Amino acid sequence: MPRPPTRIAVDAVGGDFAPAAVLEGVTTALSADPGLIVVLIGPASVVEAFAAAHTHVEAIVAEDSIGMDEHGASAVRSKKESSIVVGCRLVRDGEADAFFSAGNTGAMMAGGTLVTGRLPGVMRPAIATALPTTSDPCVMLDVGANADCKPEHLVQFALMGRAYAQAALGIDQPRVALLNIGEEPTKGSLLAQEAHMLMAASVPGFTGNVEGRDIPTGGADVIVTDGFTGNVALKLMEGLSKSLLGQVRDAMTATAATRLASAVLRPRLKGLVERLDPDELGAAPLLGLKGLILIGHGSSGPRAVASALRVAAQAVRQDVTARIAASLALADDAPRSSNA
Amino acid sequence: MPRPPTRIAVDAVGGDFAPAAVLEGVTTALSADPGLIVVLIGPASVVEAFAAAHTHVEAIVAEDSIGMDEHGASAVRSKKESSIVVGCRLVRDGEADAFFSAGNTGAMMAGGTLVTGRLPGVMRPAIATALPTTSDPCVMLDVGANADCKPEHLVQFALMGRAYAQAALGIDQPRVALLNIGEEPTKGSLLAQEAHMLMAASVPGFTGNVEGRDIPTGGADVIVTDGFTGNVALKLMEGLSKSLLGQVRDAMTATAATRLASAVLRPRLKGLVERLDPDELGAAPLLGLKGLILIGHGSSGPRAVASALRVAAQAVRQDVTARIAASLALADDAPRSSNA
Repeated sequence: MPRPPTRIAVDAVGGDFAPAAVLEGVTTALSADPGLIVVLIGPASVVEAFAAAHTHVEAIVAEDSIGMDEHGASAVRSKKESSIVVGCRLVRDGEADAFFSAGNTGAMMAGGTLVTGRLPGVMRPAIATALPTTSDPCVMLDVGANADCKPEHLVQFALMGRAYAQAALGIDQPRVALLNIGEEPTKGSLLAQEAHMLMAASVPGFTGNVEGRDIPTGGADVIVTDGFTGNVALKLMEGLSKSLLGQVRDAMTATAATRLASAVLRPRLKGLVERLDPDELGAAPLLGLKGLILIGHGSSGPRAVASALRVAAQAVRQDVTARIAASLALADDAPRSSNA
Repeated sequence: MPRPPTRIAVDAVGGDFAPAAVLEGVTTALSADPGLIVVLIGPASVVEAFAAAHTHVEAIVAEDSIGMDEHGASAVRSKKESSIVVGCRLVRDGEADAFFSAGNTGAMMAGGTLVTGRLPGVMRPAIATALPTTSDPCVMLDVGANADCKPEHLVQFALMGRAYAQAALGIDQPRVALLNIGEEPTKGSLLAQEAHMLMAASVPGFTGNVEGRDIPTGGADVIVTDGFTGNVALKLMEGLSKSLLGQVRDAMTATAATRLASAVLRPRLKGLVERLDPDELGAAPLLGLKGLILIGHGSSGPRAVASALRVAAQAVRQDVTARIAASLALADDAPRSSNA
């Protein structure tokens, strides 16, 4: 029996460069993946014309939308026919396998939690992101959904991140680590110390602590942390990569002689620059929901949209949601911390 | 009246490359600064020979030392004649203006707190570090002394870091910011939210929140955070800078053609590489004590030792300890948080 097509809902009006960047990214993704159907959500003027002109595209009209500066949860509650709320509902109702938007992050988090809904037993959905390293990409979570966490939350993040790394990155036995400020189990904050103890007892593939310096070198496949530390680390990596490569570029383009010399080097640096480009990594899944919700960078260009749809389709075909549910059920008998 | 010489105690046996790297760094520092006297602490065989051969060097014999892997606080309690404990005592007794060691960080923290002693009113001493940015260096603290912090602690870190930036970096009116995961005051963890409120009310020059991406671009002169987040951020910056520059270097040295081309670029990249070299920044002061204690990287080379002594002398001559005491006294009437 042939596999049914993978249906991914896409917010046509999410992000700073929507709808143009979104539509271009969708076109790229469709031409690369014959098993993909895109359910495009947005104003009739945008989505109906596009669906008419492209096979494997279905239009869902949503004239309303949530702006980048609106308060996420309030907007989700009041704008029930906005593209983000409609997308989260399509996933909840099984009419799409996943939903991607580069729009308001807070609204996507609220929509995922309030509309799509959490998997049974999930205490806190977490935002995961793939990070470039000198070897294979790793998954870090939480990178911003939960600024204050308890040890139990980190254990769930570990189990969800592990299932996502298996499904989306194809890593069979991910090495799962806790981000901490020393190697020994007794190092770090009270949160980190207690999380270490719980993770050692209940997370398959747990390899102990990694430190900040280990993130760029691929010291683990899944790096678990609270949403405050994870968000600082993610933005620091983006900012520092951009700043350093910018300074290298300035040196390369400073004079006619350096420009000439750089022509020889440029092809060798291309791989590095591409690997660090946030657009390559697509989008960040909000894990722990009854379906796959992916949040794109507000500045997502066509390549970011295409990458997001590629990763989403892969994750859906590898049953990411079922894997996460199974991974959490595994840990049901795991020990709980004292301050739950 | 001529200024009295600045007396800096130095642990001759601290760090992975001691004593050779320490002695070479001391020699460099002395030749650059005629107003400097180094009080060299270590085994007689090392320090007496060196003092005999160099002017402006005094020897203090300490045959005992604390190893890099010993538990800091226990070792400080049991080894009262170790070089680290002797150095902290010299500062306490006013026989040295500052003490530098590239040895056991935990022992330096314990020695500073237990032997040198805290300034009145200081709740938690904090480790500050200068960070390279695309403009001037900034000071970040705490980078590891306190994994769990309360809002009041962060307010004190801000006041101490501000005084240190004034004294050591010569910044007249430092811009002081809170590391957070959003720009608005209401963003972030409960700790960050409450710290923001207190800092806005009591820290001169407070400019609000900065995010991870703002650290490398010099968005603030003093960046305040808890010791967990700060340690992760510091080590991530070190690791990512090393990794990215290593990849650029690999591209430059890949073939005969790229090596030739790189000869033109190398002088232009030199400044960048030097600015990112941890050795340029010297050492990290433990702020909040009755004297200046500076902790060096275990891997400190001669240049790091010389930088540390240069920064230490500058800070001493600018009365860093008195400035910190005054800065904290300023805030005595500041509001306290509810969960102090």
